[in-house]
Amino acid sequence: MTSDAVSGALPPGATIGILGGGQLGRMLALAAADLGFRCAVLCPDKGSPAFDVAASHVCAAYEDEAALAAFAEGVDVVTYEFENVPAATAAFLAARKPLFPGARALGITQDRLQEKTFLSDLGVAIAPFAEVSDLAQLEAALQKLGRPAVLKTRRFGYDGKGQVLVREGMSASEALAQIGNVPAVLEGFVPFEREVSVVAARGRDGAFRAYDVTENNHENHILRTSSVPSSLPEETQKGALDTARRIAEALDYVGVIGVEMFVVREGGRETLLVNELAPRVHNSGHWTLGGAATSQFEQHIRAIAGWPLGSTRRLGRVEMTNLLGDEAHGWEDLAREDDTRVVLYGKAEARAGRKMGHVTRVRPE
Amino acid sequence: MTSDAVSGALPPGATIGILGGGQLGRMLALAAADLGFRCAVLCPDKGSPAFDVAASHVCAAYEDEAALAAFAEGVDVVTYEFENVPAATAAFLAARKPLFPGARALGITQDRLQEKTFLSDLGVAIAPFAEVSDLAQLEAALQKLGRPAVLKTRRFGYDGKGQVLVREGMSASEALAQIGNVPAVLEGFVPFEREVSVVAARGRDGAFRAYDVTENNHENHILRTSSVPSSLPEETQKGALDTARRIAEALDYVGVIGVEMFVVREGGRETLLVNELAPRVHNSGHWTLGGAATSQFEQHIRAIAGWPLGSTRRLGRVEMTNLLGDEAHGWEDLAREDDTRVVLYGKAEARAGRKMGHVTRVRPE
Repeated sequence: MTSDAVSGALPPGATIGILGGGQLGRMLALAAADLGFRCAVLCPDKGSPAFDVAASHVCAAYEDEAALAAFAEGVDVVTYEFENVPAATAAFLAARKPLFPGARALGITQDRLQEKTFLSDLGVAIAPFAEVSDLAQLEAALQKLGRPAVLKTRRFGYDGKGQVLVREGMSASEALAQIGNVPAVLEGFVPFEREVSVVAARGRDGAFRAYDVTENNHENHILRTSSVPSSLPEETQKGALDTARRIAEALDYVGVIGVEMFVVREGGRETLLVNELAPRVHNSGHWTLGGAATSQFEQHIRAIAGWPLGSTRRLGRVEMTNLLGDEAHGWEDLAREDDTRVVLYGKAEARAGRKMGHVTRVRPE
Repeated sequence: MTSDAVSGALPPGATIGILGGGQLGRMLALAAADLGFRCAVLCPDKGSPAFDVAASHVCAAYEDEAALAAFAEGVDVVTYEFENVPAATAAFLAARKPLFPGARALGITQDRLQEKTFLSDLGVAIAPFAEVSDLAQLEAALQKLGRPAVLKTRRFGYDGKGQVLVREGMSASEALAQIGNVPAVLEGFVPFEREVSVVAARGRDGAFRAYDVTENNHENHILRTSSVPSSLPEETQKGALDTARRIAEALDYVGVIGVEMFVVREGGRETLLVNELAPRVHNSGHWTLGGAATSQFEQHIRAIAGWPLGSTRRLGRVEMTNLLGDEAHGWEDLAREDDTRVVLYGKAEARAGRKMGHVTRVRPE
């Protein structure tokens, strides 16, 4: 971060650089435009959805230093839509322009072992875990954590990819082979009742604001619906928001963060275990677009631009449903539903399971 | 309009062509992107705000037929952000791609005399008027309508430009000189109490939906604030929406239309006179962005794309304030206000009186 990065808010007309050109980058760019910003998007994929709504774009690999240098030259701040930005890319850009969320938050959240160690050190409740860098470590970890347990790659996992459930009968070597024999973490199996998440933001001035806890339903490891308010007791919700705040503060975080949590029942009462952090806008926060006073996308832009954070007030009972694959072909019927907000991402090909858009339904409380 | 123009709704991924690259074009493009459309913007002004959020743009004169042909080639439907699209441009494009609102609506609304004649023939209450094509006609018109009266150019008037109040003592020739001796209309002076407007939409299938009547305050002929609900009696409001519907139907209109009205008090009760039509999204409808279930921008895109119209439900008591000139420099304080939606247009230069952005405040009913 250069010294002028924290000296003041970025004025409208400034250019926001976004790494990644998928739907998250696209919705970030649209929100930035509403505040008078210009956007530049860098992504290796031709026809990236965010290219269509950005003032400029660069189609280049994240390792292409000439492209990165030119990109950095043209922007006033850099952010990203995904946590797998290579560390070297982040370092290269951060040396040239302010990068938010910062390199430390990115480094920790893109490595499951570092993330779990960070959370554990902070005193946040998480599932038991153990480092797995070879077969001997996995065997020891299975001994310690029991079966079933979940073996997850340290890096590059999303939507259930890069993980395997190790049941009775599966050999440790087979489990390791299934995830490609890469550095991993073994997690004790959590018999969770459901999943919730906190989407929150921290500003460059340390201000913190969280949206209401969101209840999430997954199908085949892909988010299907998010709804607010959740059915958690008031006090549990407050605890969840407080956990998110502690995490954001410990990371000296700037931007929107997604904190995924498991709800487990222990001795008749529900408690929360943090599952995963996402250093970016989060699918479970899409309901805020039309369902809250400020969308998570605008909130992220406000945060990284050094603006005051916006109100996270909910506008009613909200449910967001992802449109996967050819479900997006139902746009005409969906558009006919009153008070259903249809958002489509401009992706050309509706491959099975691909996130093509979402709908948000807001009902009075 | 080609025959396939009405055969079905445009699917996401299609390209919407927008003539004009100002803030209205920009907000149309942003709304189109949310529905998965691509946008192409044609505008002669370099650095047009809409260029920054469109998948492609052409910087060319509206008379440049080669540019128009290439533009038409790349789009699936054409619309515009301003009523002064040259008739030849509209005809050129309409021969190649569907144009909405259609050439007839455009032709009528860009000529005050045609517009007043159309409204009068339709039985809509308007101020008395007379055609003025020369000095003799103006003298006769002043004789008939009395003084004061308002002399307005038939074409290219906006924000109070192209009009003069003809008081006692001003000669007819001086009045004509002040508007540049161009074809004009004389309007009887209307001692109106206030101004309201109806922003409404008509779909390709003839469906009609109107937003609540908006009350507008002008300063120096420029819109300052719009607020809803208006203080008009329920029945007067219903009459206003019905008038808008009759106008839209008589024009076989497709898209969002703005109908400006004067509120006059006659014999103790308020009645409405239609002042002007705008064949496009309208500044007095900006409150719908964040203040209604569907913004006027999305509604216009839905209409011209052949989609079902969206809900016009109001989300509370809403007030929209234009940010003129360097008022936009107050963005940081405005962004600090909770529940105030700040929209900035990305214009480089904050000239006096220039519309730089707006804020919308929504309060519970």
